[in-house]
Amino acid sequence: MSSYVPQSAVTVVGLGPMGRALAAAFLAAGVRTTVWNRTPGRDTELIERGALGARTLEEAVAASPLTVVCVVNYDASDALLRPAAVTAALKGRTLVNLSADTPDRARSTGRWAAEHGIPYLDGAIMTPTGVIGTPDGVFLHSGPTELYERHRPVLDALGGTHTHLGEEIGRAAAYDIALLDIFWTAMTGYMHALALARAEGVFARELAPFAKGIGAILPPIFEEAAGEVDDGTFSGEGNPITSAASTMAHVIHASEAHGIEAGVMRAAEGLARRVIARGHGGDGATRMVELLGLGLGHR
Amino acid sequence: MSSYVPQSAVTVVGLGPMGRALAAAFLAAGVRTTVWNRTPGRDTELIERGALGARTLEEAVAASPLTVVCVVNYDASDALLRPAAVTAALKGRTLVNLSADTPDRARSTGRWAAEHGIPYLDGAIMTPTGVIGTPDGVFLHSGPTELYERHRPVLDALGGTHTHLGEEIGRAAAYDIALLDIFWTAMTGYMHALALARAEGVFARELAPFAKGIGAILPPIFEEAAGEVDDGTFSGEGNPITSAASTMAHVIHASEAHGIEAGVMRAAEGLARRVIARGHGGDGATRMVELLGLGLGHR
Ligand SMILES: NC(=O)c1ccc[n+]([C@@H]2O[C@H](COP(=O)([O-])OP(=O)(O)OC[C@H]3O[C@@H](n4cnc5c(N)ncnc54)[C@H](OP(=O)(O)O)[C@@H]3O)[C@@H](O)[C@H]2O)c1
Ligand SMILES: NC(=O)c1ccc[n+]([C@@H]2O[C@H](COP(=O)([O-])OP(=O)(O)OC[C@H]3O[C@@H](n4cnc5c(N)ncnc54)[C@H](OP(=O)(O)O)[C@@H]3O)[C@@H](O)[C@H]2O)c1
Repeated sequence: MSSYVPQSAVTVVGLGPMGRALAAAFLAAGVRTTVWNRTPGRDTELIERGALGARTLEEAVAASPLTVVCVVNYDASDALLRPAAVTAALKGRTLVNLSADTPDRARSTGRWAAEHGIPYLDGAIMTPTGVIGTPDGVFLHSGPTELYERHRPVLDALGGTHTHLGEEIGRAAAYDIALLDIFWTAMTGYMHALALARAEGVFARELAPFAKGIGAILPPIFEEAAGEVDDGTFSGEGNPITSAASTMAHVIHASEAHGIEAGVMRAAEGLARRVIARGHGGDGATRMVELLGLGLGHR
Repeated sequence: MSSYVPQSAVTVVGLGPMGRALAAAFLAAGVRTTVWNRTPGRDTELIERGALGARTLEEAVAASPLTVVCVVNYDASDALLRPAAVTAALKGRTLVNLSADTPDRARSTGRWAAEHGIPYLDGAIMTPTGVIGTPDGVFLHSGPTELYERHRPVLDALGGTHTHLGEEIGRAAAYDIALLDIFWTAMTGYMHALALARAEGVFARELAPFAKGIGAILPPIFEEAAGEVDDGTFSGEGNPITSAASTMAHVIHASEAHGIEAGVMRAAEGLARRVIARGHGGDGATRMVELLGLGLGHR
């Protein structure tokens, strides 16, 4: 049992760009906040704004009924939280891990927390640091509903939209990893497009207004495709995957003619060609989801 | 010289989904339109709406001062336009090729047109068929400014935004290929994300609202990244490429643990790792553009 008496409503562990944004949002909302970071000195500005510092991580955790951890990944959060003194200080308090990692890591943390009597919620942040504390922040949570409801008033102080995705502890990480898959694939495609455009004498700022237009047409296409995937219709009406494969081949050809490697698009085209080889050339690109999922049966 | 007297303002060649949408938009705007397609029978509905049919492609081309071609690619448009009788019928009339292909194919078509006395504009359509004839259509054009200005009133009948990107005939195709690079990379990422989510028990319709959110954050990020690429700043402030690479590794790991191949993300991560290996780990993902462009000097 800890000898510390809670002095704050929330403790933020990890003061990288995102942890600092979280702590700043809590403070701005009038929530008494204790802060801690592995490397000292990251808390100075937050303490000037009213945050409480702590000499040790145990002391920081013991200062609040709720600890929010936001570090680079679960190797880092394990390194911080699994030493016996910290685990003991967390017992009976609530831990929310907003670091990004795989669903499996969230689940193993859930098991560790249960073994040590630590009420545990997992979460993910889907927006950049700049919008934390504004209505544009997007937070995903999973774990016991009662625990989530109990701490919601404090979490809501971060602003933005909070969604509880269910009790299964890995669910927030499952959404997170899928959404990061979209984000980083799209970003890499954009970087490649900027290189290809440059080789054709087109500056990034010239392409950007039209690239933004591509970004703008994605949401309705994403929504329609989701329905087709869940319903198994995979319609290629108006845009068959043969046409997509032809376009992908143009991108590869134009890139490589300029000496720009096209490994990402080659992998994408390979998927499209395999869908066509399986006899689905008249269907939409949504058939890729089925192809990718074929391995699922073999586990 | 043709013995046909022009009977219409525009001829549309190619009546796939997009060619039909173009012809329908011309007709809806009150533009007299002749239509033709390689495979007969595709013109029936358009003729019911007032389009003029033609027995041969030569006859179709001779019916208007302006011919708009929209077929699958430039192999197809070459097969249609390069036979002597069609080339002769096009002489002195204007040809606009809205089919998609590489900038090199647009340039070789430009040379062929010049050799045969055919005033030529190249173009690309950046939006789906459903928005042709509405304010949401996006059309890119390149070629002689005077020619573009002369035919603008007819092209404007298609609705939407028309941008003349310059006199260099390959420029519309250069933008097109770069924008399709973004689109199909992002779409493939989304398909992969849906497969990964499904393996984690998340339906496409459950992920879609958040995927749309990712689509919505892309435009401002695209704009900011374009400035960094043109200026050579490549700032990783708030999001270094080491962090992106770590996330990409999570996506690969989580996918492959489910038997879902991750070739696209493996290629993307390879780019990120090479940027880091070159000593730029603290910079942003924008450094990928520089890495991809390194081949440009070796041509
Ligand atoms: N930045 C964003 O825009 C954004 C957006 C959404 C989600 N996220 C997620 O938020 C989390 C935090 O991101 P961030 O932007 O703050 O930067 P980050 O570079 O991902 O994480 C930095 C934090 O991790 C700590 N850390 C790293 N290795 C550690 C270790 N071995 N042991 C203990 N602590 C360690 C750092 O402590 P030291 O200072 O001691 O190194 C620092 O507190 C990540 O999971 C990220 O994916 C970030
Ligand atoms: N659909 C869209 O949403 C969209 C959006 C933007 C841009 N585009 C571009 O618009 C162009 C046309 O697309 P689409 O949607 O109409 O369908 P498509 O399947 O790309 O093209 C169909 C048209 O191409 C013709 N064609 C194919 N091979 C031919 C050949 N060897 N010789 C002569 N004609 C041939 C077809 O004639 P037959 O009927 O005789 O086969 C038909 O007229 C493409 O370049 C596409 O990339 C389409």
